[in-house]
Amino acid sequence: MNRSHNFSAGPAVLPFEVLQKAQEELLDYRGTGSSLIELSHRGPEYTEVDLGAREKLKQILGLGDDFEIYFLQGGASTQFSMVPYNFLSGDEQADYILTGSWSKKAFKEAKLFGQANNAFSSEDSNFNRIPTDAELKLAPEARYVHFTSNNTIFGTQFRKEPETAGVPLVCDASSDFLSRPLDIKRYGVLYAGAQKNAGPAGVTIVIIRKDFLATAKTEGVPTILSYATHTGTMFNTPPVFAVYIFNLVLDWLIANGGLEAMDKHNQEKAAILYDEIDRDDFYRGTVLKDSRSLMNVTFRLPSEDLEKEFLAGAKEHRLSGLKGHRSVGGMRASIYNACPKLSVQALVDYMADFRKRKG
Amino acid sequence: MNRSHNFSAGPAVLPFEVLQKAQEELLDYRGTGSSLIELSHRGPEYTEVDLGAREKLKQILGLGDDFEIYFLQGGASTQFSMVPYNFLSGDEQADYILTGSWSKKAFKEAKLFGQANNAFSSEDSNFNRIPTDAELKLAPEARYVHFTSNNTIFGTQFRKEPETAGVPLVCDASSDFLSRPLDIKRYGVLYAGAQKNAGPAGVTIVIIRKDFLATAKTEGVPTILSYATHTGTMFNTPPVFAVYIFNLVLDWLIANGGLEAMDKHNQEKAAILYDEIDRDDFYRGTVLKDSRSLMNVTFRLPSEDLEKEFLAGAKEHRLSGLKGHRSVGGMRASIYNACPKLSVQALVDYMADFRKRKG
Repeated sequence: MNRSHNFSAGPAVLPFEVLQKAQEELLDYRGTGSSLIELSHRGPEYTEVDLGAREKLKQILGLGDDFEIYFLQGGASTQFSMVPYNFLSGDEQADYILTGSWSKKAFKEAKLFGQANNAFSSEDSNFNRIPTDAELKLAPEARYVHFTSNNTIFGTQFRKEPETAGVPLVCDASSDFLSRPLDIKRYGVLYAGAQKNAGPAGVTIVIIRKDFLATAKTEGVPTILSYATHTGTMFNTPPVFAVYIFNLVLDWLIANGGLEAMDKHNQEKAAILYDEIDRDDFYRGTVLKDSRSLMNVTFRLPSEDLEKEFLAGAKEHRLSGLKGHRSVGGMRASIYNACPKLSVQALVDYMADFRKRKG
Repeated sequence: MNRSHNFSAGPAVLPFEVLQKAQEELLDYRGTGSSLIELSHRGPEYTEVDLGAREKLKQILGLGDDFEIYFLQGGASTQFSMVPYNFLSGDEQADYILTGSWSKKAFKEAKLFGQANNAFSSEDSNFNRIPTDAELKLAPEARYVHFTSNNTIFGTQFRKEPETAGVPLVCDASSDFLSRPLDIKRYGVLYAGAQKNAGPAGVTIVIIRKDFLATAKTEGVPTILSYATHTGTMFNTPPVFAVYIFNLVLDWLIANGGLEAMDKHNQEKAAILYDEIDRDDFYRGTVLKDSRSLMNVTFRLPSEDLEKEFLAGAKEHRLSGLKGHRSVGGMRASIYNACPKLSVQALVDYMADFRKRKG
């Protein structure tokens, strides 16, 4: 088959080996005579998948027993409410760092539950940058500081975690989770929809530090929205297929060197692409250089007409998913873990050729 | 391949043609060079799946434009909270008919939001029956009457909707949705986790009558939990693979005659199985005859030792998923739409042989 160069922002490219394995096992899961998606989630086959994914995630992130791991449903959008439902009430405060559409949505939900503070916003400049630590207005008594580690739409990314003087971080890591090492001890909650680096849409990975979890509300929270409900048990039927693919992606990640190797690989790919953008003024990055994302590379061309032409030509070269989000316009190349360097090279070749012809 | 006779209560057997189609398309979705689970949910490929599933569901259920359809995440367990979050507050009342573990869970969540009434409970007799209309204690001013149309664990099923004197029905139809025709006009809300008759785990189908939706709360509800959020739009990334399989199951359902044909097929299968149970006293149904489920057939053997032996032997005959829920014990054969008559026949043959040897 002729595999496309897929730059979709999410759902996004998966390791081809993972898809092949899933295809191989789809009709008859390891001799059971059934597909895994036809088997009880309490049976031995899915239990092995679930426990396997947890163990591998612990290994990859260096997680000790001081963290809980949950495989939930409903995406980051559900976590926007679930976090403050569990951790914020009445006159308690939480600081929100606003670096894009998703953090704004999280901020809005928090206001329903307690006092959510705007600790920083780059909305005035169309979210084209990440704050420095000095710019953050943090409340020392905040229950947590919420940030979005990578902004899929705008193409910015925190280089490192914000400094919060010991206040636990709560992070929407949907679009750079598992793309690089992180200092997990600093997080009270890290949540991520799987559909970027981790798997297909349908499962949300939530990691919570136990001592932070111990401070969660226990009264008045709907059962399904209380994190404690999910501790040590499958409370309800999990999204079997999504967790299964996630587990295969973790196998692939370990076989390919873990987070250090991913980080190196991602830095190399991003460098190739940003170098091409910066070569002259034909292409133009949309965000400040020190805020650039290694996951979502956003850029414009000299005119909207040329952008249309660029996209049409890209399609002919089997380069797909390059159209930017409507709130930014232009191009966006999402180059998550499973995006091969080959695809980035193909894109850069096309960009160079397009510039030569049109520049 | 040697396909097993799969009686799992859910996730459950799917039409083999559906699995074959999914396997065929898993690596390269219709010439795109990507898997569907790698493509944007806003792109043309997934949009076609989403719209297709909605159209087919309308056709199958005879739904007019007076209903909204949502494909959500989080299972029926999330709907337990979402329904009262939207439709119950303060001193408003809702009636709950308690016919099993799931209705009890729904009842518990409703109490967080308003006045939930126990309209009937068969818990005293371990949920072995469905109420008659005369037994229901309904409040005329109730916002809705909630019931669980089929009780997966206990093996009971409503023959028809309860009479509620015009009060809208809210139904957890997870385990018999799409297994028979229903009088959808009587429902304010019908919700169903897909993993029984409709598809794999990971998507919840919710159908709401628009005039009932118009009475929903609009203030103070977390965005993701407000039904209105999902009207006419994909608010967040849907569980692509689960909806894709659901769409293929709908194709299969239409090609096989729709709900009337499914009902006939399901009645025939259940009759074969209940006839074998009722042949003499060796097997014993666990629920009252007029409350028996066509989906989940629960029965006991003369002793727990014989039950263990029965299960071990069943495995050798590739009859799987027959162990009853721990709260009932014994056996449970789930015979959803996609369970072929061939499998039921294989089970009955085994049962007859086992009785001959041990009875």
